[in-house]
Parts: sequence; structure tokens; C-alpha cells
Amino acid sequence: LKREEKQVIGIDLGGTNFKIAVVTSDGRILAERVTPTPDGREWPDVQTALAENTRELLKESGLAATSVGFAAPGIVDEKREYIRLAPNFPTWKNLPLRAHLEKALKLPVILDNDVNAFGLAEALWGAGKGKRYLLGLAVGTGVGGAIILDGKLYRGMHGAAAELGHILLNENGPVCSCGKRGHLEAYLGRRAFDEMATRLFPTGELPAPKRMAELAAQGDERAREIHRYLAHYLALGCATLIHCFNPEAIVIGGGTVIDSPYLFDILRAEVKQHTIEAVNEGVEILPSGLGYMAGVLGAAALCFEAKN
Amino acid sequence: LKREEKQVIGIDLGGTNFKIAVVTSDGRILAERVTPTPDGREWPDVQTALAENTRELLKESGLAATSVGFAAPGIVDEKREYIRLAPNFPTWKNLPLRAHLEKALKLPVILDNDVNAFGLAEALWGAGKGKRYLLGLAVGTGVGGAIILDGKLYRGMHGAAAELGHILLNENGPVCSCGKRGHLEAYLGRRAFDEMATRLFPTGELPAPKRMAELAAQGDERAREIHRYLAHYLALGCATLIHCFNPEAIVIGGGTVIDSPYLFDILRAEVKQHTIEAVNEGVEILPSGLGYMAGVLGAAALCFEAKN
Repeated sequence: LKREEKQVIGIDLGGTNFKIAVVTSDGRILAERVTPTPDGREWPDVQTALAENTRELLKESGLAATSVGFAAPGIVDEKREYIRLAPNFPTWKNLPLRAHLEKALKLPVILDNDVNAFGLAEALWGAGKGKRYLLGLAVGTGVGGAIILDGKLYRGMHGAAAELGHILLNENGPVCSCGKRGHLEAYLGRRAFDEMATRLFPTGELPAPKRMAELAAQGDERAREIHRYLAHYLALGCATLIHCFNPEAIVIGGGTVIDSPYLFDILRAEVKQHTIEAVNEGVEILPSGLGYMAGVLGAAALCFEAKN
Repeated sequence: LKREEKQVIGIDLGGTNFKIAVVTSDGRILAERVTPTPDGREWPDVQTALAENTRELLKESGLAATSVGFAAPGIVDEKREYIRLAPNFPTWKNLPLRAHLEKALKLPVILDNDVNAFGLAEALWGAGKGKRYLLGLAVGTGVGGAIILDGKLYRGMHGAAAELGHILLNENGPVCSCGKRGHLEAYLGRRAFDEMATRLFPTGELPAPKRMAELAAQGDERAREIHRYLAHYLALGCATLIHCFNPEAIVIGGGTVIDSPYLFDILRAEVKQHTIEAVNEGVEILPSGLGYMAGVLGAAALCFEAKN
């Protein structure tokens, strides 16, 4: 095993399934398995399932791994040892996941939140590969952010940096999940998407995000109105980010936006319009490049964060 | 001369006067002189005056210096060799100031814009001393920003980062100097201050910024209205900065705000109100700590920027 070929395990835990993969330092997946998440989602059961499946995957594939990356579906403490809370795992409160998992797997475990993991994977292997100054925006239920400088996550004083969903766009705007008004997330989160979809598609089945993107591509004016709205507020958020960071690229992920070239075209044009030319020059606005394995690649990426 | 006692020269060039000082690595001014800027402000005359006065200052004081920091009153290229343009020196266009000054002074010259210089000096010797994650806001004619991480200026991809005056607060807000709408600078720049002052003090002499701060402290409702307005929009800008950077402190300088404890009290309260508790915890909002020598200390600070 050469140094450059260090292999790690990435674990992507969801409420329904969890994915485990053996991933190389250049982002190739050598082996993977998908397993149902134990009913009840209690930590002892989840831990047993994670440990058994990891061991079996390594045994079956004949591969070794030097560490484990775990992308938390929730809030992590600033030392990245605990999961403070995880919306899909309501019984988890200040769970010392790192210590538990290290004991169970007998491997070093690196824990972080899933948006940081996403950003790091994009920087290492995705749309942001090779960029020194990279921002990530994950548009999902909420809007999360990641700031990657020189291959390292920028975390700020208490590990609370990159709350990019809470960039203010209008102090009188819609209420955000955090209770304040007019944040990026208040315009772009899933609730805003669903409200618009319900309003514009009052009869029949609501188009899911992927279908909405197809409709927009086909010229459906209702789908286009939604995508123009999302693109507009995304552009305002990106403008502030560009003026602050002068990044090489902003990589944007998330089901409601990612499959829509229509949305990205408008987004790029509006970003130019809302930023100073000397600052926006060369800044790329890119959709996530990791595809459906983004979660497990993000988890694995945590093991490859640059050291100082 | 011990290594720790390295002394440098700081040059602060204004349209009326220029200041030259010999500054230690702990920010003490060992010698200084103030000289009128040559009439016409042409570079050859300015260069001669800078070189002569620097030599005389060193000779008189018997001090030595290892380098020269020059805080440019204008826009610097990304390699920090040229002054692209300087509003008070209209004949300067892409002036290779660094090369000229190195030749004239026979010392290494470090050039940067005055807002970066201000931020660095605050981080080294001012209100931000000892802070690892520090933001600077310079509220003057416009609003400039500086981002200092681990003693180094964060410059972004093309040296165009930290345009913090162009954080968007409202896409339908007042027009900014850059031509876009609703940027922090459009609310806080000198033009906005003067317009409010003219409206609220329609007769008699307009209070200068320092006098306005005195009036606010004394309870004058007109001055307080202006300071509440400035504090409010500063708070909105700080909120976005805090959500992005989770900094230890934001240091704010500039004549229209710095002397007003009334403004800073409101600012701190509003920042708390507009930010998520987990992110704003422990973030300090501080007035500049450098006083009237800020310019020349900023210039000198450029020589003490941390290396990677």
C-alpha cells in the first residue's frame, strides 16, 4: 500500500439507508454497500449495524482502510467529537459518536457535518477540484455552506463559520428557520420551493425537484418562474459571497437546483449583474460534480482534509 | 538590534500632508515627522519628498530600518507593485510605486491598500490584538474591509477579497458608489451621512462627524437618529459577516462612527438580534484602537504581516 494510495472508509447515514464505501485519496470508490438503517434509529443498534457492515465490506473486498470519515446528518460540536442533535435521529443528544465509533471500528474516526463534508469532497474530487478558494452551497431543506481555503475547511472561532444560508438578503423578507427574516435560506430552502410549487401547480401531483427541472428545460412557464426565483436569490447571496471572498468558484448542490441548466444560466448572468467586475472576474458558478455518491464521498473526504 | 526589535518605516501619504514614522514590531513609534505633500502631487516630486524626509528622519533619530510599508490611498494591483489609481493623485495611473520607492530608498518596500493596512495594524497592535479571526471595517467616504486570519490578510483569488462595503443589504436600496443598489456602503458611506446631516440640520453649520458624536452623547435627537441609522445598517452587515466568518472580533474605524459610544451600544444590541446565538457567541464589536496614528501604523504593519 503506497502512501498516495491511502484508502479510507466513508459512512453516509440517512434515516432510511446507510452507505459505506472504501474510497481512495483520488476519490475512487473501490467497494461499497447500502444497508437499511435499523428501525427505531437508536444509537446502539445503529453502531452495531455500522460496525458489522464495515467489517464485512472490508472482508469481502479484501481491502484495508486507515481511517473512517463520518458525515453527520446534524449538528456537531466544535471539537467534532459529538453529534449535538440530528433531526432524523431524535433520541441522539450530545452523542459522543467519534469515541463510540473508534472503539467499535478500531480505526481513527473523523467527524464533521455533512455540508462541510460536501464542500471538501467538491474541492478534492468534484466541481471545485484544484481550486484554492472555494465556497460550497448545499441547497436542501435548509441552505448550508462550506468554505474551503487551500484544501482546508475554514471553521472560524468556534467552528460555527460558513452559515452561508443565513446571509441576509432583506431584513423585511420571509422568516427563516432560525427565526430571523430575509436570510438566503428563507428564499431557497425546501419550504419556499414547496410553497411556490403548490401555488403554481394547484391541481394534480406536485412535480418533484428533478421533474421541475425537466419542466423548466422544456419551457414550462410555471417551472421557469420557480427557477428564476431561486436563481435570483441565489445570485444575490453569491454576490455577497464573491465580494467577501473573491473565490475561484462557488459549487452549488441540492435537488431543487442541481439539475437545471436553465436556472444556472440565469444565476450566472445575475451574479455578474450584481457584482463588481474586478471582483467577479473569473469566478465560476458550478453545479455539484459528485452525483449520487456525494454523501459517501463527502464522508470519505473528511479523512483527506489538508493539514496545516 | 535583536530580531524581535526589527524596526520599519511606515509612510502614510495624504493629499495635504504625509507622515513618516519609525515603528517597532510591537507598534511603538520611535520617531516621526509630518511634512506637506508637494503642490501638484506629481509622482517625481512626491518621491523626492518621501525619500529626503525618510533619510532625514533616520539620520536625526539615529535609527535604522529594515523595510518600508506604504499604505496606498487608492487601488493597488494584485501583485502589490503598482498603484492603479488614487483619487487624490489624479496624475497617477498604474504607477510602479514599489519599484520606484525601493530604488529611491534602497530598502524593501511593501505596498498595499490603506484598508488592508488598517486591518493588519488593528490585528497586530490595535483593538484586534491577539485575535486569530478578525474583520476590519473602515467607514469613510466609502466602506472598505479587511479580513485577517492568523495574522495574514486574506486576499482571495485575485487580491480582490474583502470588499465588505459591497455586502448586499437590500436589492432595492440606495445606489452604491459601484452602481449597484443596497450595498453596505450605500447606507454608511460619507454621502449618506452628509445627506442625513443636511436634512436634519437644515440651518446653521453642519456638525462634523466628531461633533455629531458629541451631540448624540448629549442626547440630541437629530444626531441620535443619524447614529441609530448607521448602527442599524452596520449591524445588518456585521450579521452577514458573522454568519460567514464566525470571527472573534469585528473592528470598526472611521470618523463618522468611531467616537460614538451611543452608536456602538445600539450596534452591539442589533448584531445580537440579527444573528444566530451559536454563531455570535463571544464575537466582539470594537471601535478602532489605533487613534490618530492609525495611518502610519497601518503602513508599518504591512512589514509585519505573518508569513505562511
